[in-house]
Amino acid sequence: MPNISNRGMEMPESPIRRLAPYAEVAKKKGRTVYHLNIGQPDIATPEIALNEVKNNDLKVIAYGHSAGNESYRRKLADYYKKYNINVEYSDILITTGGSEAICFGFLSCLNPGDEIILPEPFYANYIGFAVSSGVKIKPITSKIDDGFALPPISEFEKLVTPKTKAILINNPNNPTGYLYSRDELNALRDIVKKHNLYLFADEVYKEFCYDGMEYISAMHLEGIEDNVVMMDSISKRYSACGMRIGALISKNKEIIKAALKFGQARLCPPAYGQMAGEAAIDTPDSYFEEVLNEYVKRRNLVVETLNKIEGVSCPMPHGAFYAAARFPIADADHFCQWLLEEFEYENQTVMLSPMSGFYSTKGLGTDEIRIGYVLNVDDLSNALKCIEEALKVYPGRKTK
Amino acid sequence: MPNISNRGMEMPESPIRRLAPYAEVAKKKGRTVYHLNIGQPDIATPEIALNEVKNNDLKVIAYGHSAGNESYRRKLADYYKKYNINVEYSDILITTGGSEAICFGFLSCLNPGDEIILPEPFYANYIGFAVSSGVKIKPITSKIDDGFALPPISEFEKLVTPKTKAILINNPNNPTGYLYSRDELNALRDIVKKHNLYLFADEVYKEFCYDGMEYISAMHLEGIEDNVVMMDSISKRYSACGMRIGALISKNKEIIKAALKFGQARLCPPAYGQMAGEAAIDTPDSYFEEVLNEYVKRRNLVVETLNKIEGVSCPMPHGAFYAAARFPIADADHFCQWLLEEFEYENQTVMLSPMSGFYSTKGLGTDEIRIGYVLNVDDLSNALKCIEEALKVYPGRKTK
Repeated sequence: MPNISNRGMEMPESPIRRLAPYAEVAKKKGRTVYHLNIGQPDIATPEIALNEVKNNDLKVIAYGHSAGNESYRRKLADYYKKYNINVEYSDILITTGGSEAICFGFLSCLNPGDEIILPEPFYANYIGFAVSSGVKIKPITSKIDDGFALPPISEFEKLVTPKTKAILINNPNNPTGYLYSRDELNALRDIVKKHNLYLFADEVYKEFCYDGMEYISAMHLEGIEDNVVMMDSISKRYSACGMRIGALISKNKEIIKAALKFGQARLCPPAYGQMAGEAAIDTPDSYFEEVLNEYVKRRNLVVETLNKIEGVSCPMPHGAFYAAARFPIADADHFCQWLLEEFEYENQTVMLSPMSGFYSTKGLGTDEIRIGYVLNVDDLSNALKCIEEALKVYPGRKTK
Repeated sequence: MPNISNRGMEMPESPIRRLAPYAEVAKKKGRTVYHLNIGQPDIATPEIALNEVKNNDLKVIAYGHSAGNESYRRKLADYYKKYNINVEYSDILITTGGSEAICFGFLSCLNPGDEIILPEPFYANYIGFAVSSGVKIKPITSKIDDGFALPPISEFEKLVTPKTKAILINNPNNPTGYLYSRDELNALRDIVKKHNLYLFADEVYKEFCYDGMEYISAMHLEGIEDNVVMMDSISKRYSACGMRIGALISKNKEIIKAALKFGQARLCPPAYGQMAGEAAIDTPDSYFEEVLNEYVKRRNLVVETLNKIEGVSCPMPHGAFYAAARFPIADADHFCQWLLEEFEYENQTVMLSPMSGFYSTKGLGTDEIRIGYVLNVDDLSNALKCIEEALKVYPGRKTK
């Protein structure tokens, strides 16, 4: 039998999905498992999007344009104007999920062996896309004690080598919920300009900013228009993760031209998803108001409850729908598995994401947990109660 | 502005899509353009598949399993049994189109710099997937005078180096319509076994075999079960190209395990497409009987008509829905562009694919044309008449 490729061996298993078999075990025992481990909200997809697909009368589901349907790209360009992002439809390439936008960005801009700096903890699948494209990740640690703020730019400077080609940020951030400030983004702009780097900005949570805080896109930064590549997705915005529709956006025509060639090789993004994505742009504002109110309620419940538990600390996140907390435990991977394998409280338990998989530096995040507040307030309360009770009896609890 | 990546520069533009702007010009002049250039059939997608999507009542279009929905994989395993391909559902990974199956196969099995041997002319997008994954293509020319039969295995032997890791075949073949014989596949089996190579088999046209000729899958070959990776797609089978659903199939558990990690990074295949793909498995046999009869009628018309035109020769293809012909011209790229820019016959013209882009050896295929018989017999007749008239007046016609 021939050998699997080195990259096939290096590819990490998804840290979020590793625990799935243990959840199955808990369910087989008849336990209710609250899934706070994934970014799959329970929020309904807007009806306008669902209906567009249900009412379609196409006889042949044919190939579309490799850059995505032009009508959709035009509407999306209009949508971005609401966020003060001024792009033409030709600056937009529709992709198969935000995942493909990241892949195309890496493939188009970076050579194998090139280095990319990114603040950790970060969205774990970046590691997979880096392995696929042969790119090296250079992490800079943002700390829970600083509320996961951007580390000082001097730390970025230290990592810049001739191989450094890009900085990648995820704003608002998964897994921390951190929303970058104008000062932080300006500092990033300056270093990007100074070293002529790409700035990849994964902004798939941009609709989820709370407390009246300003959302600043990398696309707003002046003087680095040709350096910025924004990655977007409809997965979170419209609770439409299964549609697999995203977008790569750049004012730099060379990037779009290169990315389109990768797009041509894979032919086109999914037809039904594009249909839904285009229709979803007309989702009424009231939908987002309701959704945001709901998320704020959930977030407040999660953060307030967690901070009342002895030994737990959780900074207040201002974006996305995740909270990252420190627990009084030594090994979050073990704790999360134990919750599913061993623990139950009134026949319920909870599935959480250990944060170690979101760090690229080994040994970090071992006492940190990511919680996606993707369930309704009642289920969340029950889940939080489980966490509280679990920490009372968990044998791996840290002693002070 | 930072530089685009080397692979971004190396990526070929799709040879099929390069001519698209010229077709637009012809249309703007009010001309009817017969599109025989793409693999997008006019055949209706089975209603059972369309209706499944139209009648779905999901409220949230959520992430699915990274390997694809289990119910779909189980049904697909059953479907393959009809073709004497005996696989478990766990041997199947649902992908976003056949394109992603090829990518995952390359990424999982091959290292950057590894070599892959494939008979040319071949599906042009293989070049793009090779560039993305850093793999080197080593072509072996199959000749139109041999009806595009597999070149002698001794030719393959000559290309085997320590870097050779795989042979890739497309059976039935795009762009030639060639269907490999049992002897040819046995010869491939022997060399794969001898050198412990992977055999990638892109069999997306397997439902389209004509004249009672036997379809032999790479999955049928004994003794190399762990070496074979089959790539499949619903695009052609159900005329559902825009759904973007394919599959990677292998009895080799290590390959599936590695491919699944690449699958986890991109989360899941499209939900609506999987829904349709699963339902489509119940498409009645009568659908395929009709479709195959239709294709045979079209193929016969194309091949017979072409061979009557002076200077044109076209071998009879026994599979897929393409015919590859030699035209009495020196530069097929120019001819195809000229057809759109300059030519008209009764205000009609035709869009064809020059074959040069399907060869990796420079200078080959310059007098060859691929015709997709994807239009109904009336339109095809008109298109063929255009070709006949065009060759009478084309200024670049070869003189004997």
